[in-house]
Amino acid sequence: MQNFMWHNPTAVIFGKDTVKELAPRLKSDGIKGVLLVFGGKGTFKSGAYAQATEMLNSAGISFSEVNDVKANPLIDKVRDGIARVKAGGIDAIMPVGGGSVFDTAKAIAAGSCYSGDVWDFFTGKAKITKALPIYGILTASASSSEVNNIAVVSNPDSELKTSITSPALYPRVSVIDPSFQFTLPTKQTVYGGVDIIAHILERVLDGDEGSELIDEQGYALIRTMMRVIPELIDNPKDYDLRAEYAMAGMMAHCGFLSMGREARGDFSSHRMGHSLSMLYGAAHGATLAVIMPAWARYLYEENSVPFARLGEGVFDIFDGSDEEKALEAIEALEDFFRDINAPTTLRELGIKEEDIEKIAENASRGESFGVLSTLEPEDVLEIYKLAY
Amino acid sequence: MQNFMWHNPTAVIFGKDTVKELAPRLKSDGIKGVLLVFGGKGTFKSGAYAQATEMLNSAGISFSEVNDVKANPLIDKVRDGIARVKAGGIDAIMPVGGGSVFDTAKAIAAGSCYSGDVWDFFTGKAKITKALPIYGILTASASSSEVNNIAVVSNPDSELKTSITSPALYPRVSVIDPSFQFTLPTKQTVYGGVDIIAHILERVLDGDEGSELIDEQGYALIRTMMRVIPELIDNPKDYDLRAEYAMAGMMAHCGFLSMGREARGDFSSHRMGHSLSMLYGAAHGATLAVIMPAWARYLYEENSVPFARLGEGVFDIFDGSDEEKALEAIEALEDFFRDINAPTTLRELGIKEEDIEKIAENASRGESFGVLSTLEPEDVLEIYKLAY
Repeated sequence: MQNFMWHNPTAVIFGKDTVKELAPRLKSDGIKGVLLVFGGKGTFKSGAYAQATEMLNSAGISFSEVNDVKANPLIDKVRDGIARVKAGGIDAIMPVGGGSVFDTAKAIAAGSCYSGDVWDFFTGKAKITKALPIYGILTASASSSEVNNIAVVSNPDSELKTSITSPALYPRVSVIDPSFQFTLPTKQTVYGGVDIIAHILERVLDGDEGSELIDEQGYALIRTMMRVIPELIDNPKDYDLRAEYAMAGMMAHCGFLSMGREARGDFSSHRMGHSLSMLYGAAHGATLAVIMPAWARYLYEENSVPFARLGEGVFDIFDGSDEEKALEAIEALEDFFRDINAPTTLRELGIKEEDIEKIAENASRGESFGVLSTLEPEDVLEIYKLAY
Repeated sequence: MQNFMWHNPTAVIFGKDTVKELAPRLKSDGIKGVLLVFGGKGTFKSGAYAQATEMLNSAGISFSEVNDVKANPLIDKVRDGIARVKAGGIDAIMPVGGGSVFDTAKAIAAGSCYSGDVWDFFTGKAKITKALPIYGILTASASSSEVNNIAVVSNPDSELKTSITSPALYPRVSVIDPSFQFTLPTKQTVYGGVDIIAHILERVLDGDEGSELIDEQGYALIRTMMRVIPELIDNPKDYDLRAEYAMAGMMAHCGFLSMGREARGDFSSHRMGHSLSMLYGAAHGATLAVIMPAWARYLYEENSVPFARLGEGVFDIFDGSDEEKALEAIEALEDFFRDINAPTTLRELGIKEEDIEKIAENASRGESFGVLSTLEPEDVLEIYKLAY
């Protein structure tokens, strides 16, 4: 097991009717004005917008708004927010939404404390040293952005969807009221669920041999998600199911499953999925349901152990050689994705075969990457072909 | 699932040769003098004392010592420490040891900021509002005291072993170097392991129905411990095994497994075990191996569900009625305790049958307690008899 630091400073307020608990915190922290960051209709439909603004009004805290944040959020929206903050009167950022909204808020929070262009943080030209405090309200679980220090943003000018990470980006407080997720479209429940499962798979399939305890925690969490997602499709307003989903959502990518791992996860599939989102606007979770099984099929024969363990731990596959168990596990995972109506081929995402080379180039950018297996640009191309 | 707050502010530095990483933190936090709190020979044997004092000397931080802290630590030792702090020159507490040492350090940290007698916190006469910062070095995993806000201390004058809890008691930083545990006596590895398992069982057996995800995490953690403990008995210096044990040790009782639970665990067995430690100085983990199975046998017939789920999740017991599975699970747990040479009867602890009534009175103190099932004083007496 590798040495590690564990310190997640975010305070989570979890449960029904908990938005109002933000008011005393904002006041005791001396916050006078916040920038509300949110997406579209869903924020109103869930009731989160009304509760957030009511809470702010009752606390006598002024607010300004940046709205219409989309999935796969764009750097221009971040720049809008920063301009708003720099105009004055704002001392905290309040995302009300899912991962895209939180990611946008984080980039605004950091960019507001920097004199250059915020994209510098994404290219490595500048380093984040501070950020405005973030008090968030989650309305869709998937990315764990509510409890981690990561933000993923897309820049169409450079055709790049990429991330920033800094201790300054942890939200100070995140409110997770699972009932805001009652009104999510089924597709979003499915894709968010795939994203949560993928965050776990990126760890347990990275080939790290000193992290059995964490692997076992991960297998249990995947089993939980496989139980919860199908039930939620039928009963989207079941509070306990939404609560389990939201809890798994915060655990999957908050750093917990990276403890003691050499690489803190593989994330090749994420990188390959990001290109599909960047170039075609494909939903993040959908890209993962397509890429992860193809990635797995491409390399399991030479790396059967983590897939075989996954088969035992998640799918009760105990017979056969490691290679046989591995293949059976990959098939079981694909079957599950199909059962919940997630796409498992590029074709289903509406992507044309002739675009595959361009997509592969966008993902590789001439570099090799990957942890379980190093992927050269030609491997990446093959995986996309396999996913077609 | 119940509403909850999750905020664990302790920074964990985990891994080999990590004590030295404390120096820059102490300096940047402006610490000039610390009170080292430790037990006996084990602190030297593990190498932790040498590394701690070398780190302090190299950082130019002065220190004073309170040593000879025993298992089931005593309030008088806490008072000694507080007197030392009040004499001046100390602005942080540094436990170097296991749970008893951390608990003593926490009580010293709180008592040093209070003008009355520290026992007032334990009786409820006073409330902890602040404490000196704690920078700890763990040498024995069991209690999770290194990452929680609880301290358990005994007071022979009132024949009471009881606890305090406060957000002020979280260590600011805890160093967990699993290699300090290479030299632990086998017994301590076993009893610490039982304690870790018991902390998980107190949650998954509390009958809470809205916490399936956490139950599943708990089952996985128990399986990990059941794999690791027997291997460690044979290979006490296996770093990866010690690391998994230490990681499970921090997860079991840091609050993680209480998320969303109505009662945050049952803890009847802990309360009944504390009386055995108070009156006979019995090792905490040993008392739990004795009490938990007796407690389970006493009430499983009317509360078979959580035991049956435990049977499925931990022991692969899938056949029979819930009641049958429950009994089989309890037997399997007892078998495991026996296999690792933990005592499972009061007799093995050297306790005389004629003392049982006095012990039961000490545990009940005229009150009823318990979550899965409310235990009246007469139930408590029966459970001790069953444990004999």
